[in-house]
Amino acid sequence: MLQSINARTGLAHGAAWAESTSRDIDLAALQARQVARDFAASTTGLRATLLRGIGQRLLFAREALVALADRETGLGLPRLNGELDRTVYQLEQFALALDQGAVHLLLDEPAVAGAAPLGRPRMTRIRVPLGPVAVFAASNFPFAFSVAGGDTASALAAGCPVIVKAHPAHPALSLALAEQVQAAVAQCGLPAAVFQLVQGAGIAVGVTLVQAPAIAAVAFTGSLKAGRALADLAAARPRPIPFFGELGSVNPLIVLPAALASGAAQRAAALAQSITLGAGQFCTSPGVILVPQGEPGDGFVRELAGQLSQMQPHGMLTAGIRQSFESGVQAWCHVRGAQVLAGQAGGSAATPCATLVQVSAADYLAQPALQHEVFGPAALVVRTAALQEMEDVLGAIGGTLTVTLWGIDGDAAQVTDEIQALVRRATDVAGRVLFAGVPTGVAVTAAQQHGGPYPASTAPGTTSVGLAAMDRFLRPVALQDAPDGLIQRLACG
Amino acid sequence: MLQSINARTGLAHGAAWAESTSRDIDLAALQARQVARDFAASTTGLRATLLRGIGQRLLFAREALVALADRETGLGLPRLNGELDRTVYQLEQFALALDQGAVHLLLDEPAVAGAAPLGRPRMTRIRVPLGPVAVFAASNFPFAFSVAGGDTASALAAGCPVIVKAHPAHPALSLALAEQVQAAVAQCGLPAAVFQLVQGAGIAVGVTLVQAPAIAAVAFTGSLKAGRALADLAAARPRPIPFFGELGSVNPLIVLPAALASGAAQRAAALAQSITLGAGQFCTSPGVILVPQGEPGDGFVRELAGQLSQMQPHGMLTAGIRQSFESGVQAWCHVRGAQVLAGQAGGSAATPCATLVQVSAADYLAQPALQHEVFGPAALVVRTAALQEMEDVLGAIGGTLTVTLWGIDGDAAQVTDEIQALVRRATDVAGRVLFAGVPTGVAVTAAQQHGGPYPASTAPGTTSVGLAAMDRFLRPVALQDAPDGLIQRLACG
Repeated sequence: MLQSINARTGLAHGAAWAESTSRDIDLAALQARQVARDFAASTTGLRATLLRGIGQRLLFAREALVALADRETGLGLPRLNGELDRTVYQLEQFALALDQGAVHLLLDEPAVAGAAPLGRPRMTRIRVPLGPVAVFAASNFPFAFSVAGGDTASALAAGCPVIVKAHPAHPALSLALAEQVQAAVAQCGLPAAVFQLVQGAGIAVGVTLVQAPAIAAVAFTGSLKAGRALADLAAARPRPIPFFGELGSVNPLIVLPAALASGAAQRAAALAQSITLGAGQFCTSPGVILVPQGEPGDGFVRELAGQLSQMQPHGMLTAGIRQSFESGVQAWCHVRGAQVLAGQAGGSAATPCATLVQVSAADYLAQPALQHEVFGPAALVVRTAALQEMEDVLGAIGGTLTVTLWGIDGDAAQVTDEIQALVRRATDVAGRVLFAGVPTGVAVTAAQQHGGPYPASTAPGTTSVGLAAMDRFLRPVALQDAPDGLIQRLACG
Repeated sequence: MLQSINARTGLAHGAAWAESTSRDIDLAALQARQVARDFAASTTGLRATLLRGIGQRLLFAREALVALADRETGLGLPRLNGELDRTVYQLEQFALALDQGAVHLLLDEPAVAGAAPLGRPRMTRIRVPLGPVAVFAASNFPFAFSVAGGDTASALAAGCPVIVKAHPAHPALSLALAEQVQAAVAQCGLPAAVFQLVQGAGIAVGVTLVQAPAIAAVAFTGSLKAGRALADLAAARPRPIPFFGELGSVNPLIVLPAALASGAAQRAAALAQSITLGAGQFCTSPGVILVPQGEPGDGFVRELAGQLSQMQPHGMLTAGIRQSFESGVQAWCHVRGAQVLAGQAGGSAATPCATLVQVSAADYLAQPALQHEVFGPAALVVRTAALQEMEDVLGAIGGTLTVTLWGIDGDAAQVTDEIQALVRRATDVAGRVLFAGVPTGVAVTAAQQHGGPYPASTAPGTTSVGLAAMDRFLRPVALQDAPDGLIQRLACG
């Protein structure tokens, strides 16, 4: 059964309702397949109208949606209003990309006379939608990574019907959002099966959805454990399907000596804010802070610990997430060489305590338990003796959404070979490398890359944020000697 | 042990030699990882020089290489000379792409002032090499899909070290080709581990290679059985890696009524040539021919059978491939409703017999055994009552490298909704859709797409032929607020 829970009080709100059955899910997948062909053939203009229609409805329903989201997540009105804005902006960005064309037609090469390999027929490279996409919503962004979030927007933009598996942490909001999307679908004259919602608190709903023969691809944001299990199921199907999973990230932030020379206090304050933003429930929350041994690194760490001690993170999304956070932090505190610098108190029943634990690079590298993500307002400070140790820590992390490097100057002449090697190491393990600012906050733009080597993503070449998110749901097809009229119909929306 | 076999006589040539051991392979992978960073940081100019150097060496050694390839494959000098030309052309195309830039730098967006979502930092989208790539060579294209073929060329172009797992059907040629590549690597002043060769006749070598922790991606061309087993291993690694596998294709060719109205005899002749080209050992060989019931379809099929009866395919690549072909054809001949139209004789000991078997669409759809590829000079004619049955056959095939549609006019006004639905069905199941000509022969160009839904490819969004083949080995990274000097060094080769 599904039940709306008040995140702040832990109390049930309203009556419980039934989960989707296997039969519901199989039927939804079949219906999605039935409409997939026509939706693939829809004009890009119609799909842009659909995305804008969804955005408009979210804006009109803002007050009720944000209130509902706040009750179910406890994330607070300012943050949730901002997230709703971002979600609407995201829908509009995909609509603009559709307006601008080039979604389906990539390249049209004229025939070249003569024998191969120089001679060749006319070749037209287009992209076609994959078919029905299963979207697994996340708990921590109830708008931007949920029912009408980036995965749904990019799949609809690509011309793929969507079945969202709602996150059980905000089940009532999921229904309310689905109603808005369904109304926009109907207003465009599109069949209802272009967008469907299924719900369930256990693993069965997700398993059934990933295994449904009609599903062509899966987009997932969530935990490593659940994500890997579903990714394995997708790969084991008789006909494997792509699984675009974002499974977690520790987001190392590297403080180079130059960053300690001036402005260190402001940096420490900004970092403390980033670690505790949304109670640390961001996939881009900085989880490992690399700081050189000795002064002035000691001073920076003291400042950071002091700032964090004054932070009062709000309550976490669910009791389960809170429990995982506490046990993760406990594990950190008890490893060899761990020094607890902030957060000993353990927090109150309702809210977690911002926590900072320090270890040496040698202890970090020797203890794989430290290399896992702890989701919540906590970070591990790793003290390093040399740039090479920073590289080694990045190597041990292996895959992350972001690496932040503080203290690399704008002057190219000052970039030593050693620093360049560190930057290359950062690009080896991350989808996004920052040279200023904090990793929380992800711009929705064409250049964005929200992905990275496993486990940050199960498909590191793809992104779940930004315009390239649409690429996940389009497959290239080369048309050879195609008549003009057909190219126009297939590729020009 | 590895042994060079004369494909025409089946006799051993020269002494046998040892396979690579697990230890050899692990060492090769480690050495590849050790040089990966520096090779990733090499200039695109150096990599272009490397590719051109390989091409030059293949041309200089042409006579010896082609003679050796002919002895080990029996494919004949004209075909092998042409294939060597195509291989050199392919290397040059990647070198040109590197010359033209835009391999590493995709997009540089200036910062926008203001609050998110409109405001954003400077974002620069680049692409970085994945790391060491394992390339599994194919038997049927000893140059173009082997040691110095498209997978190797595109991985080296991307800046990834390569370990080729040679195909045991042309082991001596593989060594000779590897020597040429190694000499070109040395001439560029690059470390030897930028390109390595491992050899083995059994499955152990491939398994060890796919499981080696240092391997970052796999490119494979070969059988469904071996490819799926290796793809499953790649997906099951603690840190899964991308597996770009081309596992087989039936390449349906659809003869629409309009194509029977005129020129049917010439079309039948061209099709017979395509079916038997290289003894049918092309991944794009047309394996299922859909023809409308009744006259004039009957006449077309008679003509095709007559043409095929006169064809004398040369010997097949290996005794094992020949055996699979014979048992595949036997299976076709004994299904319900099968009519053998050409090829009853079964061929000689040395050469296979071009074979044509006919079934109704209903029999085809009811018997999944018919829906598998038979690799060799044979095709299945499926007689259909209506366009809908043609769509159903495509649906049953599910994934194929190509679909060919004969009889769609250049005049857009004549493209009915029914024909358009058939074309969309073709784009649903294929990587390349042809409207003229035959599917054998794949142009090496930017618009090409040699891939398609599973089992044609394990990564249907990627291609193993054409310039986009390089995309498989590059991963996008967003740089946020990066200093100009660093962008230049990371992204501009």
